[in-house]
Amino acid sequence: MGRSDATALGDGDAELVEDLLAGSHRALARVITRIENRAAGYRGIVAALHEHTGGADVIGVTGAPGAGKSTLVDKLAAAYRDRGDTVGVVAVDPSSPYTGGAVLGDRIRMASNVGDMDVFFRSMSARGQLGGLSMATADAVKALDAFGKDAVIIETVGAGQNEVDVVRTADTVAVLVQPGSGDDVQTLKAGILEIGDVFVVNKADMDGAERTLAELEEMVHRRESPTKGLDGGHHGFEVPDHPDDGDGTDGDDGGGEPEWTPEVLRTVANTGEGVPELIEAFDAHATHLRESGAIESTKRRRYAEEIRTLVRSDVGALASAEIERRGGIDALADSVRRRETDPYSLAAEIVAPIADCVESDAEGVGDVGGAEPVDGDAT
Amino acid sequence: MGRSDATALGDGDAELVEDLLAGSHRALARVITRIENRAAGYRGIVAALHEHTGGADVIGVTGAPGAGKSTLVDKLAAAYRDRGDTVGVVAVDPSSPYTGGAVLGDRIRMASNVGDMDVFFRSMSARGQLGGLSMATADAVKALDAFGKDAVIIETVGAGQNEVDVVRTADTVAVLVQPGSGDDVQTLKAGILEIGDVFVVNKADMDGAERTLAELEEMVHRRESPTKGLDGGHHGFEVPDHPDDGDGTDGDDGGGEPEWTPEVLRTVANTGEGVPELIEAFDAHATHLRESGAIESTKRRRYAEEIRTLVRSDVGALASAEIERRGGIDALADSVRRRETDPYSLAAEIVAPIADCVESDAEGVGDVGGAEPVDGDAT
Repeated sequence: MGRSDATALGDGDAELVEDLLAGSHRALARVITRIENRAAGYRGIVAALHEHTGGADVIGVTGAPGAGKSTLVDKLAAAYRDRGDTVGVVAVDPSSPYTGGAVLGDRIRMASNVGDMDVFFRSMSARGQLGGLSMATADAVKALDAFGKDAVIIETVGAGQNEVDVVRTADTVAVLVQPGSGDDVQTLKAGILEIGDVFVVNKADMDGAERTLAELEEMVHRRESPTKGLDGGHHGFEVPDHPDDGDGTDGDDGGGEPEWTPEVLRTVANTGEGVPELIEAFDAHATHLRESGAIESTKRRRYAEEIRTLVRSDVGALASAEIERRGGIDALADSVRRRETDPYSLAAEIVAPIADCVESDAEGVGDVGGAEPVDGDAT
Repeated sequence: MGRSDATALGDGDAELVEDLLAGSHRALARVITRIENRAAGYRGIVAALHEHTGGADVIGVTGAPGAGKSTLVDKLAAAYRDRGDTVGVVAVDPSSPYTGGAVLGDRIRMASNVGDMDVFFRSMSARGQLGGLSMATADAVKALDAFGKDAVIIETVGAGQNEVDVVRTADTVAVLVQPGSGDDVQTLKAGILEIGDVFVVNKADMDGAERTLAELEEMVHRRESPTKGLDGGHHGFEVPDHPDDGDGTDGDDGGGEPEWTPEVLRTVANTGEGVPELIEAFDAHATHLRESGAIESTKRRRYAEEIRTLVRSDVGALASAEIERRGGIDALADSVRRRETDPYSLAAEIVAPIADCVESDAEGVGDVGGAEPVDGDAT
């Protein structure tokens, strides 16, 4: 069967999608499990859900371990419920190869104390490669969004590069900082501070909270300098070799957007202090994204990255299959080592049939011409 | 013209290769320029040179800026010449987008003071992507090797991750450390210490040299612990998802190789002190690689990585061309944003013709069957 059926829905899956859209939490849970496991048919399911997405505010919460993320997320979920919003939470642990069913048991119970099933907690772990985890998280968020959750919270366990990649799939990112951790503010600077739309000093009743707040305020004001570029100041999904020059389709390219100045807030998650103000800040950022048009360029960049990631992964898998078909990488490397061939000749042999077919496909379409030679290597 | 001609030699290029093999430094310089610029036909040239490689000892020299790398490399080159060996030096600066013709002018003059042209200096910079720089460096080394240089030295400007990737293409790696930099030894630990076959405390006449030597010795002994694995102790070119389980073709898989204990030496590059001992250490490591069989598994891993890099880069370029042909990534992302389609459906559409053609090619070959479905997504 050809790849063109890769996103066709199986019979059972069509029903599963229907049940999810009709509000079945059981169907939602099953869909997210399929997504997490990259199980047969998940692509068709996510593809079918896509058109139902776009209604949720997607919030990312990150910060160093011990900053109080999980407690704060629990309080946020309860506060959203208090005002009548439904909530989904995806807790992501890139460092763990296991799903956290047992680990999250307590939190699921806590969530059910809210009084209904409209706080949907789910943990996800690093099955397979990490690039896949960002993608799986984004897909799980789509499932919660299509289900109709008003707010979806992505919570990361730590604050490393993998967590940054994951939390970047959110529209609004909150970075939690522990008070008295002047060093932490410095440490965090590498990567994670750039993506914060809201900075939260949690445990703000602890010693050192004032200084940490002051340091964050100072950093935010430094970020406001003209050097921050035309990117609207929000966390852009930076795509290399893809200048954000707009293509004129919507007139919504980033250049003219008013900037968002990150807010710095204090919370005490244990008591719930500051949580309503934090939700107000999330709302303000969501409103900013919509009214400035920044949401359009953000989404475009994110979808561009998703398309690229999927295409690269798929053609990479085709190339790997082609290498296997020719005896496997070790045998190929040995033939190079014995000087029977060389890496360039081998690569050309492996890629030639694929390239020929892309070129003849292009001729069929009658479009812009054959594939460009790689690396300017015109032969 | 199809990709199968990608490594065919043009008429002028065949002559260029002949001239290089006949000992023309001018042809050598032109070939390396073609390699550095990824200029038309360079693949054919490198492919043609490959069978003539394997005679050179390839030495990598890295270390923090200020450690005295360039002075030491100059003295090494002179010492190799003194014993009658010919030498090629490739100085690599990943941080610079420019070639260092002007910068290296002094050193070229210095080299010519040695009395002949058999010390061939060449600088290379980060044209295009960094992954390409490791590849271009390896290709330039092949040109020097095929030319007949007895020793080829790869010298990096700094000691970051990019430099580590570049210097890893050498068979023997020397890591230079400045004395009195106890902190530097700590800092270096992330990545660069793992790849050192020889550690050199240069400027060993400075204060603190003894302590730095002691720290390095201690670290080397820690490295000798059983946790270092079955990799023979030399710097392996680690390839993810490619367990070094051997394929039985040569009986040279790494498991049974005797280990190399990194040597710790002192030099004073300005006076030449310690340089003969350093060359002895390089020779000892080269002998170890050959006699233990480690050179075979090292080369196999390196060639496997080269093949993989080339194939991935080429099919990635095909995928990018396919995306362009369908209107460009921005237009595709906008159609996803407007919910007209979704990333999975788009990726499937883009990859389907490529996949179909790989599958029909496989049927033609009568081999192990069609391409595996990606991500276990059997449809």
